[in-house]
Amino acid sequence: MPQMNYLTQCSFDFGALAQLPKVLKGLGVARPFVVTDPGLKAGGLLDRLLAALSQAPAGVFADTPANPTEAAAARAAQAYRESGADGIVALGGGSSMDLAKAVGLMVTHEGPYARYGAAERGARHIKQLPPLVAVPTTSGTGSEVSVGFVLILDNGRKETFVSPHIVPAAAICDPELTLGLPPLLTAATGMDAMTHCIEAVLSPVVHPPAEAIGLDGAERAMKYIERAVKDGGDRDARWHMMMASYEGALAFVKGLGAVHGLSHALGRISALKLHHGTLNAVILPHALAMIGGASEEKFARIKRAMGLAQSADLVDEITQLNARIGLPDSLSAMGVAQAHWSDDTRDYAATDLATGSNAVRFDAGKYDELFARAL
Amino acid sequence: MPQMNYLTQCSFDFGALAQLPKVLKGLGVARPFVVTDPGLKAGGLLDRLLAALSQAPAGVFADTPANPTEAAAARAAQAYRESGADGIVALGGGSSMDLAKAVGLMVTHEGPYARYGAAERGARHIKQLPPLVAVPTTSGTGSEVSVGFVLILDNGRKETFVSPHIVPAAAICDPELTLGLPPLLTAATGMDAMTHCIEAVLSPVVHPPAEAIGLDGAERAMKYIERAVKDGGDRDARWHMMMASYEGALAFVKGLGAVHGLSHALGRISALKLHHGTLNAVILPHALAMIGGASEEKFARIKRAMGLAQSADLVDEITQLNARIGLPDSLSAMGVAQAHWSDDTRDYAATDLATGSNAVRFDAGKYDELFARAL
Repeated sequence: MPQMNYLTQCSFDFGALAQLPKVLKGLGVARPFVVTDPGLKAGGLLDRLLAALSQAPAGVFADTPANPTEAAAARAAQAYRESGADGIVALGGGSSMDLAKAVGLMVTHEGPYARYGAAERGARHIKQLPPLVAVPTTSGTGSEVSVGFVLILDNGRKETFVSPHIVPAAAICDPELTLGLPPLLTAATGMDAMTHCIEAVLSPVVHPPAEAIGLDGAERAMKYIERAVKDGGDRDARWHMMMASYEGALAFVKGLGAVHGLSHALGRISALKLHHGTLNAVILPHALAMIGGASEEKFARIKRAMGLAQSADLVDEITQLNARIGLPDSLSAMGVAQAHWSDDTRDYAATDLATGSNAVRFDAGKYDELFARAL
Repeated sequence: MPQMNYLTQCSFDFGALAQLPKVLKGLGVARPFVVTDPGLKAGGLLDRLLAALSQAPAGVFADTPANPTEAAAARAAQAYRESGADGIVALGGGSSMDLAKAVGLMVTHEGPYARYGAAERGARHIKQLPPLVAVPTTSGTGSEVSVGFVLILDNGRKETFVSPHIVPAAAICDPELTLGLPPLLTAATGMDAMTHCIEAVLSPVVHPPAEAIGLDGAERAMKYIERAVKDGGDRDARWHMMMASYEGALAFVKGLGAVHGLSHALGRISALKLHHGTLNAVILPHALAMIGGASEEKFARIKRAMGLAQSADLVDEITQLNARIGLPDSLSAMGVAQAHWSDDTRDYAATDLATGSNAVRFDAGKYDELFARAL
């Protein structure tokens, strides 16, 4: 079983789920508390996880909302405390993994929780969390190995939390769990991974190992995303897409960019219920077009990694890829209208954590242009 | 200052040495013990390190031999204990860093030390070591970020020790410290880094992030080694060679290969005093020639990373590079003779830790051929 112990301990391969009892034992977790969502419970993946455990869990919280909220995390934290658990297993996509991270924070830290957010430079206040084993069921977020999570606070703000203590103690990446993912979700989550890789490479932060990993992830995503979308049972494609997702999160320790800035800002509009990966996919080519000449050398490296000719236009390639895998070609097609571009949304984008590491400086005016292009 | 916190915390840039007091403070080290070698003491680099410390060190051991021995490590460990130190700073190439790691093991673990060696699966017995800050002065070994060290035991065996606890708590990579490195040492250590990258990529162990980092390191080494050799003051070249070295060690968590197997075996012949990097450089093309067709896809990726045409012959490219940077073209030219190929040396190579992760299976017979080719 390949072991990758960069930021976290990771078992990665078909069948890795069987390692769960051993991994928990290695972390000293005797009473795991499972965090997942209603879809995974209904679809049977929760049962598969419970079957893989060598014992009954201390408790299960299966009510993770599509966009994790402080209220949901507080309910789960309460259940965790009452269960006498000594560690967490997160099963799901970014939502379940992020909620599980929030639970870990809440059961070990006093509120109010806004002060732990990246906007308040809250990393200083974040100490050790309970051991978390993350078991992703989508290939996109990379939350199983990332230093952060996103939570909608009671005050309505969508806040990013970042700390080395937030990295799960272990990840179990079993591509088997993604075989049933429908084509559209495969495409949208896959383009989330692609965006992580590309934005991380383009970030001006100097971190060659992370950049190399991002290039490798972009290569994999470009090579396998269509195969995974067209034939969900293509095991090779599923393996490589899960790897691209994992690599995307390893890469983005060097920062993300304006795609995520705008995507986070629009993702807050609760009435629209926009999918994060789909937003990234739609915005990506437009952000690349605006960055363009400023990152010629990086664009060349990305094209080389992806196996594209140096004469190829990366913007066109991403646009055409989106079309081939069935993703919308504009924010309008997702239900976004000009009226959604409020001052508040624009300010949110301009001050988002990801904006600071964009390839070129992006202010509110640049976001006006990016929104207009992507609309 | 770029921070890379994969396996270890690393400050990497010109001037990074100035971070030493802050890094020690962050690790809770109040009384650092410095380990270095006589050449660095005579050449003034030790004085620069001591000047960068905000306080007098608890003690200094400047007698690291070219190939670290258990006896030297025991003396240094004794001095460490007597000094009341609470952490170690290693200044030097692979020898000083490896000796410092051995000191950390000795002051926290009971002997005999052979039982901690990789040959005895000793990793199980290795617990927490004192915090070690590694400050490399060459670009090659990557020991500042690696999970292992090599020590010649009192019983004469050159033993490899491997454990996550051996990774230095922090690395300070300041290319400034390599500006005075003479051309031949620049070439030999640089080819050590190149060999780490290439052998790690070729290892069949599946670890895509490490492989991506190895490809990036190979690209850098190929691009900058000649510049660093020809003009030691070429700051860009020095930066990238130090990065290639750092990346080589991150990459070789997925294993090395037969170049290191033979190099370790010959490096034990104390009468010859062979330089590890030079050995690797000389052996590398011959091992590649023997692996050849078995790793076509990997060879293609390495050539692509290095900016070579797909029609290029990697073996020829490395052979010619060695010649251009003034390295010997055979083991004979280094003083090795057929008579040195004893049963003991051949057995050592065949059972070396690196042999197990070679691109293709290498038994004693294959090593006979590799030695004959390289001689």
